[in-house]
Amino acid sequence: MSPRNVLITVEYDGTEYHGWQEQPGPRTIQGALQEAVAASLGHAVEIHGASRTDRGVHARGQTASFVTATPVPTERLPVVLNGSLAGDIRVRSARPVREGFLPRFEARGKIYRYSFLTGDSENVFFRRYAAPVRGSLDVPAMRTAAESLVGEHDFASFQSSSKDAPKTTVREIFAARVDVEGPLLHFQVGGSGFLYNMVRTMAGTLLEVGLGRRGPGSLGEVLEARDRRAAGATAEARGLCLIGVYFSLEDLRDDMMTCSILASPGAR
Amino acid sequence: MSPRNVLITVEYDGTEYHGWQEQPGPRTIQGALQEAVAASLGHAVEIHGASRTDRGVHARGQTASFVTATPVPTERLPVVLNGSLAGDIRVRSARPVREGFLPRFEARGKIYRYSFLTGDSENVFFRRYAAPVRGSLDVPAMRTAAESLVGEHDFASFQSSSKDAPKTTVREIFAARVDVEGPLLHFQVGGSGFLYNMVRTMAGTLLEVGLGRRGPGSLGEVLEARDRRAAGATAEARGLCLIGVYFSLEDLRDDMMTCSILASPGAR
Repeated sequence: MSPRNVLITVEYDGTEYHGWQEQPGPRTIQGALQEAVAASLGHAVEIHGASRTDRGVHARGQTASFVTATPVPTERLPVVLNGSLAGDIRVRSARPVREGFLPRFEARGKIYRYSFLTGDSENVFFRRYAAPVRGSLDVPAMRTAAESLVGEHDFASFQSSSKDAPKTTVREIFAARVDVEGPLLHFQVGGSGFLYNMVRTMAGTLLEVGLGRRGPGSLGEVLEARDRRAAGATAEARGLCLIGVYFSLEDLRDDMMTCSILASPGAR
Repeated sequence: MSPRNVLITVEYDGTEYHGWQEQPGPRTIQGALQEAVAASLGHAVEIHGASRTDRGVHARGQTASFVTATPVPTERLPVVLNGSLAGDIRVRSARPVREGFLPRFEARGKIYRYSFLTGDSENVFFRRYAAPVRGSLDVPAMRTAAESLVGEHDFASFQSSSKDAPKTTVREIFAARVDVEGPLLHFQVGGSGFLYNMVRTMAGTLLEVGLGRRGPGSLGEVLEARDRRAAGATAEARGLCLIGVYFSLEDLRDDMMTCSILASPGAR
């Protein structure tokens, strides 16, 4: 068959991986996927992801593309690739896309969720997926603060330094929400794009609001400062999950509204 | 201080352990707890659990007792022991109990939950805590079948052979329920005691009812047969969680009624 470009949706528990991006030595998500293609389809490949998630960060809806001439039908690729992947990475779907389609550049937006485990409760079942917080949180104050992040802003205050910093630090946040579910508090945010550590820094700043260390109306000043030191601490990686990458803003808005959350069978 | 008997409640993700019971070589929950006491309180100890959970089985509310003369106040023991334990085991509470109190013999009942992940959905976040099932399940049929397990019965058909089989295979099931939560199906059962692999065999048999391979009214015959071959396959360990050990039947009934289930932040 002639080569075709395939887009896959990938879910992973990032706990055991050194992030998305391939590097010599430690296991990465990109590396594991490339090895699975080599093992199951029999050819080397470069897999292009939409988001370079960090070490310990999870994904429900990462997307990635690669070119293959395999005779395996596209709709069979999830089953075939999953046969060569460890259980903490699953390819959930595959579809053909036009030549040259790179999800990183085609994406119109992404949704991330950051989860805190509140109270003094220890919980082994959430330890990989939520950052523990001592004490109780002022949820209405966090909602007010989250609301002030919505819109087009210069998010320089929420960017960690990185070796390939983008030209502009202006991004648009379409929607942000704070949901409580038992001892869990979820901050979910949908936007046009995100700077390095931006969601984790937003989450860390909202946490300070929730703990009463910052006022709920203080985020305007943080944005205006355009200085990383104005924002709060970067929340730890394990609480972060890439919920989805969207090529249509309608799909993103739908998913921000229907933020239904499913249970862990270990919890009660 | 003079020696006192302490009862602890313990939560664990059993994935990385070879079950509760200490054995030479592989890591076990009992072994890890005994090492934590030695490391933090400075003395050797035997820890007596209420339930010898199998390899890969989880617990929200395992209980165990041990004797200590430590000057550390009992209420501080969870924090102190957790400081010496890996993150997949947490001591949630500690309280003094009378001399000679052994939870295995004092327990009036236990609640277990078995969780299936239904549909064809792969889900990395539940892979440690739910057994995947292909296809959809007939939930009303499973509820009918589960109901017929309630009462005092000879559960010989649901017992796997083991080297220390009990004298009687009669047990009382106080309550059983089947709950659906998104793609998860939970079978929760509270009883006076459970034979070896009894919950997993009940779950495997209910699964066959759900898949239409057995009738919903067939469990009476399975019980009457008093023959392991009459029941279904033993469901895999990862779906099983010991929810609680009860020293009062009122507490058990309360927990069976308020089977609220909390979300995993990785899911949506």
